[in-house]
Amino acid sequence: MRDVAIIGCGMTKFGRLEGKDLMDLLAEASLRAIDDAGAGERDFDSVYVGNMMAGELVHQTAVASALVDRINLIPAGAERVENGPASGASAVKNGFFAVSSGASDLVLVAGGEKMTAADTDVIGDLVSTMTHPTAEYVHGVTLPAMAAMLTRLYMERYGVTERHLAMVAVKNHANALKNPYAHLHRECTIEGAMSSIMIADPLRLYYACPISDGAAAVVLCPLEKANEFTDKPVRIAGFGHASDVQTLQEREDPAVLKSVQLASQQAFKMAKLEPNDIDVVETHDAFEILEIVQSEDAGFFEKGKGHLAVEKGVTALNGKLPINPSGGLKAKGHPVGATGVAQIVELVWQLRGEAGERQVKNPKRGFACNFGGFGNNTVIHILERGW
Amino acid sequence: MRDVAIIGCGMTKFGRLEGKDLMDLLAEASLRAIDDAGAGERDFDSVYVGNMMAGELVHQTAVASALVDRINLIPAGAERVENGPASGASAVKNGFFAVSSGASDLVLVAGGEKMTAADTDVIGDLVSTMTHPTAEYVHGVTLPAMAAMLTRLYMERYGVTERHLAMVAVKNHANALKNPYAHLHRECTIEGAMSSIMIADPLRLYYACPISDGAAAVVLCPLEKANEFTDKPVRIAGFGHASDVQTLQEREDPAVLKSVQLASQQAFKMAKLEPNDIDVVETHDAFEILEIVQSEDAGFFEKGKGHLAVEKGVTALNGKLPINPSGGLKAKGHPVGATGVAQIVELVWQLRGEAGERQVKNPKRGFACNFGGFGNNTVIHILERGW
Repeated sequence: MRDVAIIGCGMTKFGRLEGKDLMDLLAEASLRAIDDAGAGERDFDSVYVGNMMAGELVHQTAVASALVDRINLIPAGAERVENGPASGASAVKNGFFAVSSGASDLVLVAGGEKMTAADTDVIGDLVSTMTHPTAEYVHGVTLPAMAAMLTRLYMERYGVTERHLAMVAVKNHANALKNPYAHLHRECTIEGAMSSIMIADPLRLYYACPISDGAAAVVLCPLEKANEFTDKPVRIAGFGHASDVQTLQEREDPAVLKSVQLASQQAFKMAKLEPNDIDVVETHDAFEILEIVQSEDAGFFEKGKGHLAVEKGVTALNGKLPINPSGGLKAKGHPVGATGVAQIVELVWQLRGEAGERQVKNPKRGFACNFGGFGNNTVIHILERGW
Repeated sequence: MRDVAIIGCGMTKFGRLEGKDLMDLLAEASLRAIDDAGAGERDFDSVYVGNMMAGELVHQTAVASALVDRINLIPAGAERVENGPASGASAVKNGFFAVSSGASDLVLVAGGEKMTAADTDVIGDLVSTMTHPTAEYVHGVTLPAMAAMLTRLYMERYGVTERHLAMVAVKNHANALKNPYAHLHRECTIEGAMSSIMIADPLRLYYACPISDGAAAVVLCPLEKANEFTDKPVRIAGFGHASDVQTLQEREDPAVLKSVQLASQQAFKMAKLEPNDIDVVETHDAFEILEIVQSEDAGFFEKGKGHLAVEKGVTALNGKLPINPSGGLKAKGHPVGATGVAQIVELVWQLRGEAGERQVKNPKRGFACNFGGFGNNTVIHILERGW
């Protein structure tokens, strides 16, 4: 297996991006990544597009074919990868395979979603189509409802309080204020979060991510060729990918994200690293409880102790293990297909020391958790400085 | 790059399959492939699902997560691959990468579509969403209309007649009569085809594929481990994948399927083979003109001479180069996401000598052309006996 490097990355601002359609967003992020890699004159072998629901949201299929045409990467082979909210990281994983197998020498991976093409209630329904069709969806189960149940369980079992959720939101909003690409540039206070409207008891509006448009992209090549493009290649040191039982109520323990545990273990094993070796983390905090639970199941904190790490500032930008320096899904935004790619873009910027005001101090290794379904399909990547 | 073998395959019957939903179809084909591989007790590393429009047709996303749960392949990593009508072959290609990279030792690739979940006019519209959104789709361009234009061009330039289209249909219907998995078990005569209703002049109903439900699946592993499962492994000797300009009117020559040419050349180069070395072919005859054009652009016949090969019986079941022994998309059916996988299943059966009444005489190598968009994204596979 050839070592794979990320040699370029780029993204659009996330937000309600009026006047830009899905192809505009994918093209913008892709061209920035290609430009960042200095690969504008090169021939790409493969293009992967992470996208969850272009057909449903903007009535367009085969978006990967459209993207290679739009940004003139013909005749590169191209396809779209869909894995619910983990579509972005799944696309990166397959781009990694294309390079590591020896089949491709230059690969573009873009992820994007035009969420605001539909009304909020339509979005709520579409996102729910990833749940079990007969055991969950038809009964009206929604993702916020699932997150609310997990939150309640964590409160009862581990002593998590609403204040802890608010603390995660406050941290991530503060980080997003330092990220020009973030959707929400708005200070959030504990009191403000705790007085926001209730959407699924005990979840308030501020304990969930917004609905955002956006795209992100990375360029991959074999590590041995990375120096043709950059003196700061970021190596994909490990990945993990695991699935779990789809319906929440059938899981052995609904408070355990087994796919996060397994995928993290796989990634650490492949990278020959341990959680202690990681300097910066991006988690999939579509709901704030998920940042806490993922930080435990990935192995960074003991089960049931993640909220205490938040309380002590361990996960703050200047803490021992900064989590979601980008602002996370909570405040950077969550254009579903873009998210997994955007997490990796943030880690690359952090490892290169290019994260501006939100720069974590001299990180060597980063960890990204992209979470599909309600935790039944998780993709993990571990990135490492290649210089 | 590790050599990759197909060690098991299976499919559902294609057709209007009332009472079976998308997951039923994917599960049925997958379990048959796993059973065929004798891999029921093994742990799968990865699952790929080729599917074009589950979200649009059956209001379900993340179908790969649902499949691993349904057939108990948890915790295998799983994702869906979408590449319009080439979704199936794109899924196989990525399964190939997962194994050839060394990341996975046992991979399931399934493809499926539940087309009859929607009315025919809705299907027509949904399929058109793969065309260029502003240069084609909004103007009402449909796939049959594109095929009609290509047919007209071929008639004017190369002397193809309506009778040649009918000959392809007659051949493929005859083959399908020998294929228990085919959708249309109905003899077709030249006169019958030429008197069927006109759908897009000069295309009549019998020069186009039907709307079918169905699924197909293959199991992949490293060739070096294939003997743990079977004494008849089929090696994926080569693949090719190329894109082209999306809008038909902007192509250098709309009568040339450049992506078919390039992807075929890539596949032959990788396999160190030439068109002459191929014994059996499956093409993407969503429209009968496409079988003719693809057989030329893949390199089997001179440009403009494909229809003469049909006329001379070269492409018949007992001809020198049998094309679409399965019945092709025309008569086997075209459940979009299943098609690319089903082409490969047919080739495996042919190479193993298990194709029953439609068995081609002692083939050693097969070639499959799965065609995305209207030819702007083509995936080719070359299979070879591994024993």
